[in-house]
Amino acid sequence: MDVVEIREAVDKAIENYLYEKEPRLLYEAVRYLPSAGGKRLRPIIACLSCEAVGGDLMDAIPLAVALEIIHTFTLIHDDIMDMDEERRGKPSVHKKFGENRAILAGDALFAKAFEILSYTENAETCKKLTRNLAIMAKEICEGQEMDVSFEGRERVGEEEFLEMIEKKTARMFEHAAMGGAMVGGGSEEEIEAMRKYGLNLGMAFQIWDDCLDVIGKDIGKPVGSDIREGKKTLIYLHALEKHGELANYGNKEATEKEIGEIISIFKETGAIDYAKNMAMEFSKKAVEAITPIKESEAKNKLIEMAEFAVKREK
Amino acid sequence: MDVVEIREAVDKAIENYLYEKEPRLLYEAVRYLPSAGGKRLRPIIACLSCEAVGGDLMDAIPLAVALEIIHTFTLIHDDIMDMDEERRGKPSVHKKFGENRAILAGDALFAKAFEILSYTENAETCKKLTRNLAIMAKEICEGQEMDVSFEGRERVGEEEFLEMIEKKTARMFEHAAMGGAMVGGGSEEEIEAMRKYGLNLGMAFQIWDDCLDVIGKDIGKPVGSDIREGKKTLIYLHALEKHGELANYGNKEATEKEIGEIISIFKETGAIDYAKNMAMEFSKKAVEAITPIKESEAKNKLIEMAEFAVKREK
Repeated sequence: MDVVEIREAVDKAIENYLYEKEPRLLYEAVRYLPSAGGKRLRPIIACLSCEAVGGDLMDAIPLAVALEIIHTFTLIHDDIMDMDEERRGKPSVHKKFGENRAILAGDALFAKAFEILSYTENAETCKKLTRNLAIMAKEICEGQEMDVSFEGRERVGEEEFLEMIEKKTARMFEHAAMGGAMVGGGSEEEIEAMRKYGLNLGMAFQIWDDCLDVIGKDIGKPVGSDIREGKKTLIYLHALEKHGELANYGNKEATEKEIGEIISIFKETGAIDYAKNMAMEFSKKAVEAITPIKESEAKNKLIEMAEFAVKREK
Repeated sequence: MDVVEIREAVDKAIENYLYEKEPRLLYEAVRYLPSAGGKRLRPIIACLSCEAVGGDLMDAIPLAVALEIIHTFTLIHDDIMDMDEERRGKPSVHKKFGENRAILAGDALFAKAFEILSYTENAETCKKLTRNLAIMAKEICEGQEMDVSFEGRERVGEEEFLEMIEKKTARMFEHAAMGGAMVGGGSEEEIEAMRKYGLNLGMAFQIWDDCLDVIGKDIGKPVGSDIREGKKTLIYLHALEKHGELANYGNKEATEKEIGEIISIFKETGAIDYAKNMAMEFSKKAVEAITPIKESEAKNKLIEMAEFAVKREK
């Protein structure tokens, strides 16, 4: 299957698994974000990884959908905490359905994810995946807690920052790739190779995402929104170190001109290049990690994905 | 093991499973409610049910703790939605740690529950329990959505009300009893008997809880708080039908005297007796359900629990 077909299979599975209709408002809120499309990166990685170790891609669908649903659930709750009013170019769930129902819709999606995961055929694999994804979800919470706490702090070290994005974002890619290989019956070596691939790809992906916020491409939210929110991104941390205090960083009312000035400082201090290079390093490591995996169409697509993660403009 | 010993084993297991320390504030919020004690009814039922079908009670500990943790997580999120400032006689999690951290602590507990459940030894049983508890958690969300939506409505039918408490409360007792029997290697007949026991006990428990709110015993929140909040309890629904509108029902500023007047109407219309009788009926059904289970200490304790559910004063 090519990536477009996998995405279609995942979309279809999401629709089938989220079959509940009543109570109506709850399930409208539940379906709102998962059925709004999206890149489906985590599901695609899980499916390709399964295929790359010789498994049947369709066996990885429960895992793939569970990951996407957990991802969606965290977006809903994060948007409440961060008071983000937009997501994927639409009003966020709590803006549209109210905060209470958004909390509940997130919880229901979380529950659905583990139900869906339990449709994994092999019981031993299912048990391992349940534990792994549960620990992963817990670490996402830890990452979110770190992220929020960074906002209230003056200084954040690069190491802490990397730990935060590893937990909040990269582990999900890790478990997509590793879990796919487990479902596909991969050897221990293959599973470990995929684990490293996913983790490094996730890091590359997140750091590149932070770059996109300042180099002005469409990621479904206004350019410079990290700047207005005062997010402690790698770019910011690097610029802070080189330049000292950045006026208007975290000023929600900052003008376009003021945002432009900050972005200029980011460029002059080499902060953007620094972050871009780090993202590219992680991407390279992801590709190298799967050297032990034998050649296949699926493996090539995984390599392309890792390369694309640091080329994409949205 | 007697009930006190089971409670101790559960408390100890909760402490062991919730070992995480960092980020510190997150895990203080995570541990706040689970380590505050409580009746541990769901874990005790799971353990006794396991033993009653001939299993080793300790094998049910992962299930028992997972259930208690899910219960706790729903309390934390419900308290945010209901703006309840007290829980078990202490400030609720969101009052103490703020709303954002309370959302996150709930999510982390939810994740922990599935991690803990995955320590169930037998993989086939683990897979079934994961699915069952995930569906149960989803139904708890549905029940909460119904509960919240009832508050904004004039009339609620008794049938809808019973569906709501079945989802929000009774299913957890159902899965405690049924899951315990599964872990204990019970026959299909035994598992089904335990399922019915748990479901009916859960119904009895919740309806009795609503009675306690008006007959003035200590359940860790002020007497009449359901009345001030305008909760659509069975007692209220029955009184409404017999008496018509109840002045000051749902008035947060109602005086002690006004609360007293409503309670008088509850008494005169027979609403309290009606609810009490229904709770007792459910309790009786719970006891009858386990007729097929062979006699044992554990079975006797389960019977006692069902009887006590509608005698307790807190």
